[in-house]
Amino acid sequence: MSDKSITDRRNFLRRAAVTAIAGGAVAACSDATPKVAAASTLPAAKPALSAAETMDKMHEAGVKAFPAKTAGKGNQILSPRIENGVKIFELTAEKIQWETAPGQMVEAWAYNKQVPGPQIHVREGDSVRVILHNKLDQSTAIHFHGLELPNSVDGIPFITQPPVKPGESYTYEFTAPEGNYGSHMYHSHHNSAQQVGLGMLGAFLVHPKNPSPIEHADVDYTLILNDGAHGYTFNGKSFPATEPLTAKVGQKLRIRFMNEGMMIHPMHLHGMHMTVFAKDGWTLPAPWRCDTLNVAPGERYDVIVNCKSAGVWAFHCHILPHAESEHGMFGMVTAVIVS
Amino acid sequence: MSDKSITDRRNFLRRAAVTAIAGGAVAACSDATPKVAAASTLPAAKPALSAAETMDKMHEAGVKAFPAKTAGKGNQILSPRIENGVKIFELTAEKIQWETAPGQMVEAWAYNKQVPGPQIHVREGDSVRVILHNKLDQSTAIHFHGLELPNSVDGIPFITQPPVKPGESYTYEFTAPEGNYGSHMYHSHHNSAQQVGLGMLGAFLVHPKNPSPIEHADVDYTLILNDGAHGYTFNGKSFPATEPLTAKVGQKLRIRFMNEGMMIHPMHLHGMHMTVFAKDGWTLPAPWRCDTLNVAPGERYDVIVNCKSAGVWAFHCHILPHAESEHGMFGMVTAVIVS
Amino acid sequence: MSDKSITDRRNFLRRAAVTAIAGGAVAACSDATPKVAAASTLPAAKPALSAAETMDKMHEAGVKAFPAKTAGKGNQILSPRIENGVKIFELTAEKIQWETAPGQMVEAWAYNKQVPGPQIHVREGDSVRVILHNKLDQSTAIHFHGLELPNSVDGIPFITQPPVKPGESYTYEFTAPEGNYGSHMYHSHHNSAQQVGLGMLGAFLVHPKNPSPIEHADVDYTLILNDGAHGYTFNGKSFPATEPLTAKVGQKLRIRFMNEGMMIHPMHLHGMHMTVFAKDGWTLPAPWRCDTLNVAPGERYDVIVNCKSAGVWAFHCHILPHAESEHGMFGMVTAVIVS
Repeated sequence: MSDKSITDRRNFLRRAAVTAIAGGAVAACSDATPKVAAASTLPAAKPALSAAETMDKMHEAGVKAFPAKTAGKGNQILSPRIENGVKIFELTAEKIQWETAPGQMVEAWAYNKQVPGPQIHVREGDSVRVILHNKLDQSTAIHFHGLELPNSVDGIPFITQPPVKPGESYTYEFTAPEGNYGSHMYHSHHNSAQQVGLGMLGAFLVHPKNPSPIEHADVDYTLILNDGAHGYTFNGKSFPATEPLTAKVGQKLRIRFMNEGMMIHPMHLHGMHMTVFAKDGWTLPAPWRCDTLNVAPGERYDVIVNCKSAGVWAFHCHILPHAESEHGMFGMVTAVIVS
Repeated sequence: MSDKSITDRRNFLRRAAVTAIAGGAVAACSDATPKVAAASTLPAAKPALSAAETMDKMHEAGVKAFPAKTAGKGNQILSPRIENGVKIFELTAEKIQWETAPGQMVEAWAYNKQVPGPQIHVREGDSVRVILHNKLDQSTAIHFHGLELPNSVDGIPFITQPPVKPGESYTYEFTAPEGNYGSHMYHSHHNSAQQVGLGMLGAFLVHPKNPSPIEHADVDYTLILNDGAHGYTFNGKSFPATEPLTAKVGQKLRIRFMNEGMMIHPMHLHGMHMTVFAKDGWTLPAPWRCDTLNVAPGERYDVIVNCKSAGVWAFHCHILPHAESEHGMFGMVTAVIVS
Repeated sequence: MSDKSITDRRNFLRRAAVTAIAGGAVAACSDATPKVAAASTLPAAKPALSAAETMDKMHEAGVKAFPAKTAGKGNQILSPRIENGVKIFELTAEKIQWETAPGQMVEAWAYNKQVPGPQIHVREGDSVRVILHNKLDQSTAIHFHGLELPNSVDGIPFITQPPVKPGESYTYEFTAPEGNYGSHMYHSHHNSAQQVGLGMLGAFLVHPKNPSPIEHADVDYTLILNDGAHGYTFNGKSFPATEPLTAKVGQKLRIRFMNEGMMIHPMHLHGMHMTVFAKDGWTLPAPWRCDTLNVAPGERYDVIVNCKSAGVWAFHCHILPHAESEHGMFGMVTAVIVS
């Protein structure tokens, strides 16, 4: 809930309370006067908001606050340093404070102070070096989820590498495999239920050398779903601090769904359908359409939305308790805004 | 559990208890007689039912009670009133008492006193008017889930319309969009986790102008799954009060699955497979077969069952605790009866 | 966790504790000496393992113990007795003690003392007889999940047969239906939430008369997922007691996923993708690729992995709390080992 919505809600609760007290006070002061008279003075006082109005005001405050400002933005593109033709990405893991919604601070274990960690973009066949610096007080390691790499860079402590201890650095060096382009991820694979739950994850996008027509999009958006210690989030933020997806009428919007949580999230888009054309980066032989796409932990789906219709289109997890409470929308809610 | 099953179960428990007491009494009265004699009198008394038999009797009672009678039937087709070529549907939201299984009364927030609300049927291109009357003490609004409508009738308070306050009415007017036929839904989109959980939902079916051959079915059944405040239900009822689906050998049965709950429900049909041909109303490019169909919240699937085999075929959620307890089958269980 | 890992962990905890006490003792004994001196003696003492090292040691112990030895192996092929051309399989249900991981004993209700029960293999058109012996103290029955059989052998007490009482036997006789080959299951359908949860389940594989090319595999592995009273298991075992899948470079590995639990399990394979070619035994019209396959209760999926890359490839449920804790990997973790 945004500061504004909290403030609005407090104001309404306060106003309601004050009105009730005032009414009570009037009644209390009217001991000497006939009860009918006391009652008749009440309409003159500001009437208490009804429960329905109070609820509506809280809902309205959330919507009006959207998109609410918070400190920190995750999932930002990380530009590589290029040396001898190798794209070099440095990731530093450390504890930070993270604001998921206005005023909601949580402890995060983050790459480069971002939740999700920065987006990594490479192209099929690229030479890639990822250097991990561990500033946590636990060991860690990175698994490149979806990339078909040699076993030695698979990122599993005691199986393919030693753990990267506190204070240490570790280098992963590989070629982005041919034919294995698409929407992939990177995340911790050591004490992962805790480390990934606290934010040690990010998108790893491999672009094809020869994109097929369905890959063309005017807007390309990566949406990482999570549900761990930070609550129900899209790219590390909860409504109303989530980011809207924006496009113009007639544009093609590509959404890359990634689930880094522990639960399924059936994502529902209002007003326009999605054409699902890739699963875990692999092009589907027979793309299919839907308005509700069930994304399970570890899965990625790529969809195209033909933005044919102007408006602010709600876009949310359809497990309703992940998206709305009696206090209004929260968590896994954002909007596709077509202008 | 049905009245009958509860009664049966009580009778069995009572009978078992009485028998045990009687046995005890015999033993107690036999203090003066040798113990062997006392023991030898026991076979003459009615023996206590074994735990296994008691369990079986409870299971049997549930099955025998199916389909058990309860007050109220949801998901009934609502005939529109037609004015100047516009199909007009009126929906009144109000609190009712709802019987999910014999004797199991719950509070429901219902449209037209039904859980699920009445089925709405239109055809592509139809002019449609839905008039909502709010008799609840909360505001509400209706979202037409799956319909690609103009933003102004999307049903989201404070984004596309004001909330419809207690005592107010609100009118949604639109054309059923071309190409967007199929199995859709309508439900509250205000305080929705609570309102939908309590019953404010229903099927919105848009029929194609030119049905493809796979759309032809002898029996067309809409099955809405739910798991909220009313327990595990099919069309608002729990086994043994669920409704069987009936067909004749050789007929094509179309089932429209809709999940309005908060959990996945992998629906398992015994004895015959399902051919899945549409997702969220959209025809699949490559229909596929299964016997267990995982339906997530907000999703719809259309399947065809070729009823080739006579019998009473169990049809249930395969998360077994949603379907059976030590007391017998309950919740998300029904049958496809082919005669 | 294996005996070894538990021992390692205890040793580390003990050593850490002893070191801490020793350190404390040094400090306590140094009351007479200046504090700086006392501090300076500490480096000479064996330093306490850091929390990170202690955690790493526990993780390492789990990995090193894999595949850990336990008593009992489920999912073994049951050779039929053949009489007059009928393949006869006998299944005896009884309570046993089952070791899910080294030292972790649980009560199981098992077929032929195995969890999962023995694998049954038949061919399309085979005459099959399954004889169930019930040595439990509850009634039971077997449902052949996915097989399209006559209603009379569907295995549902009080609907298609009487319950099979304690001490009784029951015979199911049928022809493996033509066209209905694939990866199916058998399990209890009486008090099933409890009985299946405790182990009364197994694989029932029907081989096609004329296998298509995609059915050819060098290695054919059936992997049954479970999450009930026995914890998170693959074929009745938890990591590090799970069984690795082994293949040689260039071989085709077929994995038959079956979920007999109550939760989804999105199965993630490292390093190599899976081509999904059948759902519930039915060949998909358009096979698709993935690295993470979401398997819901009651579902089966058949996939092919082209084992192109040597290594020990982690293979686990991607709901991370089903696979790893602060003490290391456990539960739904195994590996595909390509040599």
